[in-house]
Amino acid sequence: MSDAIDLLAEKLNDKPKLKDLAIRLGVVQREAKELGIPALVIIEGLDASEKGSLLNQILLEMDSRAYEVYSTHASHMEPRAYPLLWRYWNNTPARGRIQFYDRGPYYLVLDAWAEQAIKEKELENYWKHIRNFERQLSEDGVAIAKVFLTVPKKEQAKRFEKLESNPKTAWRVSPKDWRRHKQYKPFMEQVSEMIKSTDAPYAQWEVIDTKTTREAAIKLYLTIIRKLESAIAQKKIQIENAPSTDWISYKGKNYLSQVKFKAPLERAKYKQQLKQRQETIHDLVHEIYSKQIPVVMVYCGWDAAGKGGCIKRLVQGIDPRSYHVTPVGAPTSDELDHHYLWRFWERMPRRGRIEIFDRSWYGRALVERVEKLCSNDGWQRAYREINEMEAHLNDFGTVIIKFWLHIDKETQFERFEARQENPLKQWKITEEDWRNREKWDLYEEAVNEMISKTDKPHAPWTIVPSVCKMRARIQTLDTIIDRLGNALNKSKNPPL
Amino acid sequence: MSDAIDLLAEKLNDKPKLKDLAIRLGVVQREAKELGIPALVIIEGLDASEKGSLLNQILLEMDSRAYEVYSTHASHMEPRAYPLLWRYWNNTPARGRIQFYDRGPYYLVLDAWAEQAIKEKELENYWKHIRNFERQLSEDGVAIAKVFLTVPKKEQAKRFEKLESNPKTAWRVSPKDWRRHKQYKPFMEQVSEMIKSTDAPYAQWEVIDTKTTREAAIKLYLTIIRKLESAIAQKKIQIENAPSTDWISYKGKNYLSQVKFKAPLERAKYKQQLKQRQETIHDLVHEIYSKQIPVVMVYCGWDAAGKGGCIKRLVQGIDPRSYHVTPVGAPTSDELDHHYLWRFWERMPRRGRIEIFDRSWYGRALVERVEKLCSNDGWQRAYREINEMEAHLNDFGTVIIKFWLHIDKETQFERFEARQENPLKQWKITEEDWRNREKWDLYEEAVNEMISKTDKPHAPWTIVPSVCKMRARIQTLDTIIDRLGNALNKSKNPPL
Repeated sequence: MSDAIDLLAEKLNDKPKLKDLAIRLGVVQREAKELGIPALVIIEGLDASEKGSLLNQILLEMDSRAYEVYSTHASHMEPRAYPLLWRYWNNTPARGRIQFYDRGPYYLVLDAWAEQAIKEKELENYWKHIRNFERQLSEDGVAIAKVFLTVPKKEQAKRFEKLESNPKTAWRVSPKDWRRHKQYKPFMEQVSEMIKSTDAPYAQWEVIDTKTTREAAIKLYLTIIRKLESAIAQKKIQIENAPSTDWISYKGKNYLSQVKFKAPLERAKYKQQLKQRQETIHDLVHEIYSKQIPVVMVYCGWDAAGKGGCIKRLVQGIDPRSYHVTPVGAPTSDELDHHYLWRFWERMPRRGRIEIFDRSWYGRALVERVEKLCSNDGWQRAYREINEMEAHLNDFGTVIIKFWLHIDKETQFERFEARQENPLKQWKITEEDWRNREKWDLYEEAVNEMISKTDKPHAPWTIVPSVCKMRARIQTLDTIIDRLGNALNKSKNPPL
Repeated sequence: MSDAIDLLAEKLNDKPKLKDLAIRLGVVQREAKELGIPALVIIEGLDASEKGSLLNQILLEMDSRAYEVYSTHASHMEPRAYPLLWRYWNNTPARGRIQFYDRGPYYLVLDAWAEQAIKEKELENYWKHIRNFERQLSEDGVAIAKVFLTVPKKEQAKRFEKLESNPKTAWRVSPKDWRRHKQYKPFMEQVSEMIKSTDAPYAQWEVIDTKTTREAAIKLYLTIIRKLESAIAQKKIQIENAPSTDWISYKGKNYLSQVKFKAPLERAKYKQQLKQRQETIHDLVHEIYSKQIPVVMVYCGWDAAGKGGCIKRLVQGIDPRSYHVTPVGAPTSDELDHHYLWRFWERMPRRGRIEIFDRSWYGRALVERVEKLCSNDGWQRAYREINEMEAHLNDFGTVIIKFWLHIDKETQFERFEARQENPLKQWKITEEDWRNREKWDLYEEAVNEMISKTDKPHAPWTIVPSVCKMRARIQTLDTIIDRLGNALNKSKNPPL
């Protein structure tokens, strides 16, 4: 195979032919596939920059099983119902596959700015979120190629006029296109700011002038081919240097040791408090729906700490159409083929909906760390990645409520025993639960580090003493009432 | 475990308690899970029939990992962009899981009728499609429970008034609710017609009066529990009687033997014809988009018959935003956990889009039959199931174009050899291709039977002689031009 590549490389040195480039792309794509390298190609550009026909040209020569295309339309599928990056996360490439964006998040932001839905000073915050997105993918091994297609102003006008002169294609030119044409200079200035802000070593922009379509096609091919080639070289080095899996200790603040367990709540008092809280939440959820605020709730905690019971008391009396519970277990093979945040992004709530996670993305910093299911690099990166994800949700207006249900080791033992003795509850306890228990100290360290690194003003942790289940339920409900109430007082609805 | 069930059954004989029913549901649900039984619970009902709170009550006592809820809203997510059953297929239960519909397809149809978007005489056709859907799931092992919740007219008015009297809940009663209230009698008559038409031994309706909520809850519990119990009993019998896998011969018409291969097309002529066809298709696709017609194209054929090349020539010059290619390979584990049509339904195009399948659901009647990947019952049922699916798409206005690319055994041999010798094409040929080739005669029988049983006026097969690849490409394009042209002449847009 490498003979064939050399042969092609030679040919390419003088005058690359499109046919040769197509063959070469096929060769590197198949090698990338064998190595399990995912790739993302973002094609942005001005109107009438031949995006469609250039992309088509590339795709036509590729094996249709190798790639996916996601097309962004400004008006498509209520982009405002979800955070900006939601749809792009849902369309990240699996290992060994190439994902094309026929326009991507840059276009949505620039379009919103040009349509005056976003102010200029807000742009940098959007670029930051997109930068984070690309860095996270890149650190997970995704090869990213970004292309911005341009066309000179005069040539753009010519292309519009040509389309308009033919009754069959006239519909493709909209008043908005001409409006954007008049804004050519300020728009290009903004594009250049955008490129400056989002150009990164792992996600470089290639600006391609499309005045000559053939040359543009050659450049597009070479950009993608080179990106894949360097990803292949990098991957080979990585395979040779397997990372260490030694335990890395955390010496910081011990949050869990400070938890005080109070005496059990009286049953009658509990019943009365529960009823009152549930009624309040019932009303709050209606308001959350009518103000279209999205809410994310995360229930983490020790096995047998009572997560399920707390969730049950929460949803009692809420309209089932307003919430959804996602129980989080071991990832499927499809999920393992993506960035670990992918499967959670898919579940992020649209405006007005409540998504309840029974376990969550924090598994990366807990079970995956303790069981060495990911590299040390992997879980260490996770703190920042999670903070960035939660910041993106928060900017969209999502309320984030996170619980750690805490019990002591003895309480867990008693509950495990009780489950084992009850024929109706035996299914709740497995060998794995006992195995996890043996690693209590490692988990404790992991929980403490996780809290210290991901406790943020907009996404704070609430550590819930749960030796008395009734107290835990009331406290989680009180926290929710508090957070939803605050959110309703200052609700905002950003455009993206 | 069975002791516990007996104990509960005894208790239930006099006065079932809700708590006991909840425990019993948990027990049977776990047994159904272990046996890999999927279950579907459809909850339909009148406005103010306490659907939400009854459903909530059931769900609260269940393990949140065991079920999913899909809620239907008349206005939600552009129901008219996809065929009626598309969203329900996308939400069918995986093996071992329970899927609830908080209102389902019945509601959408009845609502459209009450809003005068559908005429009374059209209803039966919708009921037929829903019947087929339920029968297909049932034959695949899904336990189906259907419940219609009613409330007497006077009581309904009382409930509306109670909601309206409280400023916090007043928003829940809409003018439409009162309109529907005035239509109470004719609406209930239509419901009773619907129940008559869609009641089946495998998907029986249970009509539950909700005047007393507690009694309604007991009936709802018992309906679901009994359905699961009988599915468990049935499954156990099935496990004992493994079906035969003997080859069942087809003696009907031999379509493939009648195919005549003409002399190769001249290259210059081909180029000219290709260009002309592609231009025509380019224009047709614009019209298809502007008239919002959905299109499904299916490319089947022998290995190396040239499917990829035909698809390539088709999409050359079409805007990449208007079509999507789905290459069909072996199903993933998630897909194996569902009805085999599930993964195809997910890909069915919305209005105005073209979905191109590179191999398709016909795999059931071909590779799965020949390789004994499903039971004889399974692939024999497939003809009817596929015909029903295509009829449903056709009623929605979807154009269905199906190709079988035919070559002879010698041509395949030559192409395999040529691929093997070309270092850039070796990846296209695998051991499996050679193995499949050994079973040529069995495949031939399967193809002939498939064509004889699934060739329908609205979804005809085109057998394309493909020994000359150029002829094959032109013929597929001509067929597409013909079919799209006809569809544009009589385009219709039914409401559901």
